[in-house]
Amino acid sequence: MTRAEIISVGNELLNGSTVNTNATLIARRLHEMGMPVLWIQTVRDEKLAIRQALDSALSRSQVILISGGLGPTPDDLTKPVLVEYFKSQLVFREDILQKVKERFEARGMVMPEINRQMAMVPDNAEVIPNTIGTAPGLLFRQDGRLIFVMPGVPREMEVMLELDIIPRLRQECPQCQTQTDLFRTTGIPESALYEKIADHLQNFPDYEIAFLPKLTGVDLRVIRRDEETQRHETFENFKKKLYNLIGEFIYTTENLELEAVLGNMLREKKLTISVAESITGGLIQDKLTRVPGSSDYFLGGVVAYSNASKIKLLGVQPLSIETYGAVSEQVANEMAIGVREKFGSDIGLSTTGIAGPTGATATKPVGLVYIGISYRSRLMVQKYLFGNDRETNKQRAAQAALDLVRKNI
Amino acid sequence: MTRAEIISVGNELLNGSTVNTNATLIARRLHEMGMPVLWIQTVRDEKLAIRQALDSALSRSQVILISGGLGPTPDDLTKPVLVEYFKSQLVFREDILQKVKERFEARGMVMPEINRQMAMVPDNAEVIPNTIGTAPGLLFRQDGRLIFVMPGVPREMEVMLELDIIPRLRQECPQCQTQTDLFRTTGIPESALYEKIADHLQNFPDYEIAFLPKLTGVDLRVIRRDEETQRHETFENFKKKLYNLIGEFIYTTENLELEAVLGNMLREKKLTISVAESITGGLIQDKLTRVPGSSDYFLGGVVAYSNASKIKLLGVQPLSIETYGAVSEQVANEMAIGVREKFGSDIGLSTTGIAGPTGATATKPVGLVYIGISYRSRLMVQKYLFGNDRETNKQRAAQAALDLVRKNI
Repeated sequence: MTRAEIISVGNELLNGSTVNTNATLIARRLHEMGMPVLWIQTVRDEKLAIRQALDSALSRSQVILISGGLGPTPDDLTKPVLVEYFKSQLVFREDILQKVKERFEARGMVMPEINRQMAMVPDNAEVIPNTIGTAPGLLFRQDGRLIFVMPGVPREMEVMLELDIIPRLRQECPQCQTQTDLFRTTGIPESALYEKIADHLQNFPDYEIAFLPKLTGVDLRVIRRDEETQRHETFENFKKKLYNLIGEFIYTTENLELEAVLGNMLREKKLTISVAESITGGLIQDKLTRVPGSSDYFLGGVVAYSNASKIKLLGVQPLSIETYGAVSEQVANEMAIGVREKFGSDIGLSTTGIAGPTGATATKPVGLVYIGISYRSRLMVQKYLFGNDRETNKQRAAQAALDLVRKNI
Repeated sequence: MTRAEIISVGNELLNGSTVNTNATLIARRLHEMGMPVLWIQTVRDEKLAIRQALDSALSRSQVILISGGLGPTPDDLTKPVLVEYFKSQLVFREDILQKVKERFEARGMVMPEINRQMAMVPDNAEVIPNTIGTAPGLLFRQDGRLIFVMPGVPREMEVMLELDIIPRLRQECPQCQTQTDLFRTTGIPESALYEKIADHLQNFPDYEIAFLPKLTGVDLRVIRRDEETQRHETFENFKKKLYNLIGEFIYTTENLELEAVLGNMLREKKLTISVAESITGGLIQDKLTRVPGSSDYFLGGVVAYSNASKIKLLGVQPLSIETYGAVSEQVANEMAIGVREKFGSDIGLSTTGIAGPTGATATKPVGLVYIGISYRSRLMVQKYLFGNDRETNKQRAAQAALDLVRKNI
C-alpha cells in the first residue's frame, strides 16, 4: 500500500483565520483513488518547521503533497527550503516568465518585478503548470518517493491536483486504480439509508461506501477496488440493486445540486415555475437562481411572510387562514394555486410552516411544514415534520420542496 | 513564549469526509489569547500514529491540545494510548457514570453498557467535565507541559474549550493575557481597509490586527497585548481614531450578522420592510428570515425574475423597461416603490442587476447592480459594479442592500 502524507504550509492555518480545506480535498481525492493519507502536518511559514515536517514525512510516506508558501513575497519559504533540502540549483525559465507576464497583461497590469522569481525553478524538479495562477507546481523524486509541491490558493491547488497530480499518481501507482461513483440522495437520514442497503453491501466486498451526510441530504460515494475484468457487469448489477432499494431518494449520480438537476428537467420539459414561500423565506428562490440560466424556467415568486401578504398577493382566502391557520394543507394549496396564477407559470410551488424557535401551538409543533404543488390539473400537498433548529428547518424544507417537484413532473 | 500544538485524531479527517474545523477554532482562540499554535498534526485512529504524534509534540511544545478518539467504541484509541504513554492506572468514578446515565435518561433511553468505560479515568490526570456529551476531557501534566484531551465532536470540544481550557490556560500563562475586539465591516475590500488604517496601526504597536476577509465583508480582530494599566483609556483612544477612519464601514462590534443588526434597528424603530428582488433572487429575504423573530418587521416580498412579473406584481411601467432596460436606476426605483405599496411596509427595498455569466450588453457588464430604497418621502438608488462570478455577485448585492438600508434609516 502506498502511503501518502500532506504538509500544509501557512500562518493563516495556524492563527485560526483559515480552515484547512485544501488538506481535506487532497485527502478525499487520494482516498477515492485508493491511496490513503495517513498524516497531515500543518506548519508555519518558517524554514525550520517546513524542514522538520519534511524529515518526518520522508521517514514514513511514499507520496508527499505540500501546499502553500510558493508565492513571491518574502514570507513564502517553501521553495527556498526545498531547494536547500534537495540540493537544487535554481534555473531561469523564460517560458514560465512569459506565462506570468501574460497573466498580468490579461488583467491590464504590468507584472510587478517581484514575480520574476516565479520563473526560477529547481533544476532537479519537474515543473507542474499552474493554469489559474502564477506560481508553478513542482515534483521532486527521491529514493522512489514523490514530493509534490502546490500553491496554497485553494482554486489553484484544486485545478493542479485534478489536471495533473491525480492523473500522474494513477500512472505511478497502477495498483491504486479505483473507480468512484456518486449517488446523491435526499429525504432519508444516514442511518435509515444504511439499514436499507447494509445487506446489499455485504454482497460486494470490493465496494466500499462512504456516507457523507449534509443538511440537504446524504451523498453516497462508492469506491470500487474490484478487478478490471467483469468490472462493468458487476457494477451494473450493483447499481441496479441499489436503485431497487433506494432509487426513490437518489436525485443524481453527477456532481450537481438538486436545483440544477431540477432546472435541467424543467428546461427539457419546457416548463416554467413560480414559488410562494412562507417558512423558507426566499431560500427556494435563492437556490433556483444560483443556477446560471435559471431565468429560462424560473419566473419569480412571492415571499409571503405575513397573513396579509398571503391574502393580498396570493389570493389566499381569509376564511382559510381563520379556519385552518396559516400553517395548513389548505393554505399551502391556495398559495400554490395563487402564485401559479399570478405568474402564469406551469408549476406553482408553495411552503408554509413553523421554523421556530417561536410560533408553535398546542397542535402545531416547531418543524411542521406543508409543501404544495399546483401543476396541470393536479394539486398536491405533502406534510413534513423536521426538527427544532430554525436554519435546519428552512434548509430541509427548501430541499424537500425542490425534490417534491422533481418527483412529480 | 509558550508554544502550543494541536493533535487531531480521527480517520474521518484523513479520508476527506470531514474538514478539520476543530483545529481552526482551537488555533484561533489560542492565537487571540497570545499563545501561538505552531504545529497541527492530524493522525488516524491508530495507536502508533497517536504515540508518534505525542513524541513529536512533547519534544517541542509546552501546551498540547488533543481532540478526538475519546468515545466508547473500539476505534476510539486516544485514552488507551495516553494511559500507556503516561503510565496511568484507570480508576472508576461513580460520579461520572451517574452523569452519563442521566444524559441517556434525559433522552428516554437506558445507557448502553459500552458507555460504562466513560467512567474509567487515568489516576494521574485531572478530569475536565463535558457539559454537552458523555466523554469527559482530561489534563495530564508532565515536566511543566500541559496535555489537554478533548472529545472530537465539535460542539462538545468547543464548549469544553471555552468553559474550562481557555480559562485554565489564562491562569497558567498570565503573560499571555490579551484582549480581543471585533469590528465587522462591509463595502470595502481588505487592501483598501488596510491602506486607510496602516498609519494608525503604527501608533499602537501593542495592538495586532487580523484581517479576516469573507464574501460579505472583512472582519477586523484587534488583539491587545498592552499593559493592564491605562488599557481602557488607550483602547478608547484607538477605537475613536479607528471610527474616524473607517467608521462608515463598521456595522457591528458584536458577533452578529448584518441581517441581525438591521433587524434589531428595525424593531427598535418600529419599522417594517418588504423586498423586491431580481438579481439577488430571494437571497435578501432568505437572510432576513434567518433571524428568529424577523416576522416582527419583515412583511414579505417578491422575486421578480421576469419582466412580466416586475410589471404585474410590482407595477413597474412597461415603458421604463423598454426605455432604460430592466437593469436600470429607473426600474430599481419603481420596484422599491411598488413593493412598499403592495405590502404596506415602511421601507421598500429593491435589487436589479446582471448576475452572469450571461445577460451582459455593450453598456451593461456582468456585475452591474442597482439597489433602490423607498422610505418616507425619500427615494434613493445606488449603483454598484461587482465581479464576474454569479454567486459572488448575488452575495455582495444582498449584503450591500442590507447595508444601504442600515445606513439610511
